[in-house]
Amino acid sequence: MNSKSNIIVAQSGGPTAAINSSTCGVIQEALKSDKISQIIGAINGILGVLKEDLFDISAERPETIEALRQTPAAAVGSCRYKLKSLEESQADFDRILDVFRVHNIRYFFYAGGNDSMDTADKVNKLAAARGYELVCMGIPKTVDNDLAITDHCPGYGSVAKYVATCAAEAGRDTEALATTDTCTILEVMGRNAGWIAAATGLAARGPEDAPHLIYMPEAAFSFDKFIGDVKEVYKELGRVFIVVGEGLKNEKGEYITADKGTFGRDSFGHVQLGGVAEMLKAVIEKEVGIKARCNKPGTNQRSAMHFASLTDINEAYMCGQAAVKAAMAGENGKMVTLVREKGAKYKCTTGLAKLKDIANGEKKVPREYINDKGNHITDAMRDYVRPLVKGQAPVTIGEDGLPIFMRFSKKFLEKKLPNYL
Amino acid sequence: MNSKSNIIVAQSGGPTAAINSSTCGVIQEALKSDKISQIIGAINGILGVLKEDLFDISAERPETIEALRQTPAAAVGSCRYKLKSLEESQADFDRILDVFRVHNIRYFFYAGGNDSMDTADKVNKLAAARGYELVCMGIPKTVDNDLAITDHCPGYGSVAKYVATCAAEAGRDTEALATTDTCTILEVMGRNAGWIAAATGLAARGPEDAPHLIYMPEAAFSFDKFIGDVKEVYKELGRVFIVVGEGLKNEKGEYITADKGTFGRDSFGHVQLGGVAEMLKAVIEKEVGIKARCNKPGTNQRSAMHFASLTDINEAYMCGQAAVKAAMAGENGKMVTLVREKGAKYKCTTGLAKLKDIANGEKKVPREYINDKGNHITDAMRDYVRPLVKGQAPVTIGEDGLPIFMRFSKKFLEKKLPNYL
Repeated sequence: MNSKSNIIVAQSGGPTAAINSSTCGVIQEALKSDKISQIIGAINGILGVLKEDLFDISAERPETIEALRQTPAAAVGSCRYKLKSLEESQADFDRILDVFRVHNIRYFFYAGGNDSMDTADKVNKLAAARGYELVCMGIPKTVDNDLAITDHCPGYGSVAKYVATCAAEAGRDTEALATTDTCTILEVMGRNAGWIAAATGLAARGPEDAPHLIYMPEAAFSFDKFIGDVKEVYKELGRVFIVVGEGLKNEKGEYITADKGTFGRDSFGHVQLGGVAEMLKAVIEKEVGIKARCNKPGTNQRSAMHFASLTDINEAYMCGQAAVKAAMAGENGKMVTLVREKGAKYKCTTGLAKLKDIANGEKKVPREYINDKGNHITDAMRDYVRPLVKGQAPVTIGEDGLPIFMRFSKKFLEKKLPNYL
Repeated sequence: MNSKSNIIVAQSGGPTAAINSSTCGVIQEALKSDKISQIIGAINGILGVLKEDLFDISAERPETIEALRQTPAAAVGSCRYKLKSLEESQADFDRILDVFRVHNIRYFFYAGGNDSMDTADKVNKLAAARGYELVCMGIPKTVDNDLAITDHCPGYGSVAKYVATCAAEAGRDTEALATTDTCTILEVMGRNAGWIAAATGLAARGPEDAPHLIYMPEAAFSFDKFIGDVKEVYKELGRVFIVVGEGLKNEKGEYITADKGTFGRDSFGHVQLGGVAEMLKAVIEKEVGIKARCNKPGTNQRSAMHFASLTDINEAYMCGQAAVKAAMAGENGKMVTLVREKGAKYKCTTGLAKLKDIANGEKKVPREYINDKGNHITDAMRDYVRPLVKGQAPVTIGEDGLPIFMRFSKKFLEKKLPNYL
């Protein structure tokens, strides 16, 4: 390997409140290394590599880089572009190596979910096959918290803290106005895994507290059981606060919003607008006869920097740092993992796992974290998530009373290759 | 009037992050007065009076009362029960006076919007007509900020701060993922007035920043203009972040969600589930051809205690205090108003307005606060709202990392009258 080479930093998939903190960890650690010449940002993840849309992060002001820790979403830019197998996406993979070669990129730091780890793994293998010296390291990132091996994923602690607080707060709203607006449904993210929905269970400190019912994709959803659950809580408390993961599935594993039965479609069989909460609102109003409202924070839940978990933001930074340290120590083809140390007091360190093992894995909410009825969480889940939401990440407030976020000035690298895509 | 008498405290309408702070101001000020014997809470507003569902606030612990300032929603309980004219609701009004009489209630402090001020005014007039000595005082409360005379309403500053921050944060999310999730629509509250939607304009510090387009009920909505606006922003920035008030209306003043045209109903003429954002998402995907997402924080926006404006929470308290002070000084039939002092530096004091004048008024976003195109705000609006969002209201965080809210222990008063309702 050259004595001095360049590194590329990229972000992928759905943004989080913590991914920029990971990227900050990569950059600030890389700036310390004498093996690294230039830190290059790929705009919009692997798309930026393919299109040679690159900018010089080393040229950014240190304050801008530091402010990454307080900025939500993905400041380098993200994408959902998915590469398939080496055979099917041969041209893409070749192009990636071409771009790396002309810019003397010998380290690739990719923050993302399992698809991104798959991409990094394949790029790494192709480079090895072609005899191009390259180190590919992954940094975990997903609010969905569904990556294998790692105890949890950066981004999750912040969304967990936020949605649990949303449930606590809106729960008080429902409680105050129960004589008319008797039921509230909070729809949270999680198409396949219920980790975000499960986290709201933290807000239920006592039986009065919201949420009273939590539905996760891991527990097969039944409309009859659901209606029964709602009636029971309503009878007991005179109000009902429900949290649903967006990807609820029936016993056959089909999304209930695509259900062909009575609900989810109108009487002519047309799929209704709105998500699962809107649909369940209609079910409750018809079958239980109480007014229901829907809250759907959408992308606000994963970008809620103003109430991010300090634990999460710090661990995200630690993951970025650890990726660079490991790469400099000779590791390759690995993703940094978060390792929860044994013991009563929460302590988290980092480990490493093969990119391939992350790419092929998925971690759902285990059965023992969900109660027997499939409509709330257990203490095991509470113990798991509680440490992750702790602490308030710093936010700098501007003269106008709102948080200040950074943007890169983006000094673009000159393109050396023909256009692609 | 008796040398010592009781007061009743009640909350009405949609909860806010600040109404409990107003109630705290009433209670703590009333506790200082030697004219007052017992402070009584009416559970669920006027409904609690009608049903004689009353509890002894004087018996609550001082810490519980103090914690009202940090608790969202309406801790005494709220309702949407609307009394009509004295003639039409004669039985209700008589019952209210009966309940007041048997519990020696000589002061009625009612926090709410214009319907509540109307109720308080009518109760007051009936009491006078019947020769029952009663003082009725109103405390402004509404996230909608649509009360007449008062410069602004407690509750508004907090929702304004929260939704503007939501726009800033989710705007960064849209920016990061613009290659696929190109457009985001944030739907905020405001059925008749666009104050909440307008507040998000604060987040647009520069042309890159969200929101790029803001639609308020005050500016007649045209689908053609809307599609043109979206196309223009998309062409310029490659992404579009839109804020819509839930109550957008067309030129005829009809809610666009009830529009009988192409949009808002499916091809069979059935009204679609979901609100205005879901509908506009469908319009954008069809007419502009870009993917759109919807965020609809719902009741989370008005209960977001975790990021409430300190200015708002303090002013809310001040209104409660001022209502008691004014009542003790001999005022009656008035609502406390917030008065913005002239001068460059923001300073806010309280005034008084007749309940009747509040009941019959409504304050919409003035034309000069909305830009010429009707799709964003002007500097006049920014100047109006900026001081209201400032400062972070204190929140006590529990061992589990989430905010702690209070609940009254509710020592119920013995019922002295037959059941009613």
